[in-house]
Amino acid sequence: MDFLKADETLDDLQLKDIQVIQKKDAFRFGVDAVLLANFANVKRSHRVIDLCTGTGIIPFILAGKTESNSIVGIEIQDEFVEMADRTVEYNKLQERVSFHCRDLKDLAFLKTLGLVDVVTVNPPYKLQNSGLINPNDKNAIARHEILCTLEDVIIASKAVLKDNGRLYMVHRPDRLADIFCLMRKHNIEPKRVRMVHPSVGKAPNIVLVEGQKFGGAFLKWDTPLYVHEEDGSYTREIDEIYGR
Amino acid sequence: MDFLKADETLDDLQLKDIQVIQKKDAFRFGVDAVLLANFANVKRSHRVIDLCTGTGIIPFILAGKTESNSIVGIEIQDEFVEMADRTVEYNKLQERVSFHCRDLKDLAFLKTLGLVDVVTVNPPYKLQNSGLINPNDKNAIARHEILCTLEDVIIASKAVLKDNGRLYMVHRPDRLADIFCLMRKHNIEPKRVRMVHPSVGKAPNIVLVEGQKFGGAFLKWDTPLYVHEEDGSYTREIDEIYGR
Repeated sequence: MDFLKADETLDDLQLKDIQVIQKKDAFRFGVDAVLLANFANVKRSHRVIDLCTGTGIIPFILAGKTESNSIVGIEIQDEFVEMADRTVEYNKLQERVSFHCRDLKDLAFLKTLGLVDVVTVNPPYKLQNSGLINPNDKNAIARHEILCTLEDVIIASKAVLKDNGRLYMVHRPDRLADIFCLMRKHNIEPKRVRMVHPSVGKAPNIVLVEGQKFGGAFLKWDTPLYVHEEDGSYTREIDEIYGR
Repeated sequence: MDFLKADETLDDLQLKDIQVIQKKDAFRFGVDAVLLANFANVKRSHRVIDLCTGTGIIPFILAGKTESNSIVGIEIQDEFVEMADRTVEYNKLQERVSFHCRDLKDLAFLKTLGLVDVVTVNPPYKLQNSGLINPNDKNAIARHEILCTLEDVIIASKAVLKDNGRLYMVHRPDRLADIFCLMRKHNIEPKRVRMVHPSVGKAPNIVLVEGQKFGGAFLKWDTPLYVHEEDGSYTREIDEIYGR
């Protein structure tokens, strides 16, 4: 297939035959994106923006799982956006999914998109100062707070959400105090949390958070999600989320 | 035993033969207090203050489990303090454990106690406005934020803690955003969380939080604690915490 570059693969999402283009050796979608897309509650009438979209994995999963006809991904790295655009074309999703190569700190641009019901985001997890980073490394930009901080993400979310609209975020549990405090600072009330554990008895290593713009204070904790059984196989719930 | 009133019981903590006096029909200590006393890291040299101490269950457990010689409980309801004082006497703990009948908002009084290494607190869980409350009901005062709020508790904790001292709190998971944000507001950094689940696969219903006065930002998540096995019996870890 000549629309694929030599360093790319075409991967089957196993959702309505959607195939996504990814780099062989660079930032590839993982369980986090799949869990976030499953955690988000997206109805047919909802307009959705996915921030830090990368190669668009969350918009493509949402296109497969929901009936939303307005799913927009925002990504600052043009190489990823160009790949996401080719995935749109390959899957003939031009009517439902689109991408913009923009800095999410460009609030003036975001406002031109109109307000949305749902924001999803799988942001860079790591603080800028954690570990040795090559700031030109595309994977480092996707993983560390080099080009945007958690607060930038929350400010952008607030800017594009309708009142009472929902923000769905996947992150690391060690940042949950930051997430709660920054959400509240910007009037996005934490409403629901789901902790993801590698297996029963292990500390959580992924957190899913739902916030609501101008929402009232009440935080619901979902049942925990366990990824693996004791024997290393996937749990039934993970198989269901992956559509297996 | 004539030191017991007709409406009281003497209950064996099963820790170094310590027996505590409780009301038959009023606020009795539960799993929360036991889990908090187990969660707190109290060394021999540490001075400890327990806020909202009630009849003193946490100080008495800490007296049994640790070698601290300075464990002070603060309680606003005089009837509970009087019971706690009789428990001290019965167990000959006068050298190690003492109680004061005071409002924890009385910071001037708290400061006369000297700074401590550890604060423990099992505060009223419920917001003042949640449900119908009789404000003269001793149980209601222990359970609802009638006489003190979560923020009052955190302000009092900060007032009595040494720099880098630790606050250990047990609360409900639905208040965790409040806990994190109020701790940060008052320079007590959330450092460690342990979620307690009724059993595997159930949402957490108790949270244990450790904060550090002027601590650096890094939040560690402990392995979850499960209270019951699937068959309803206690888990091995709970049996160990209860010394069974």
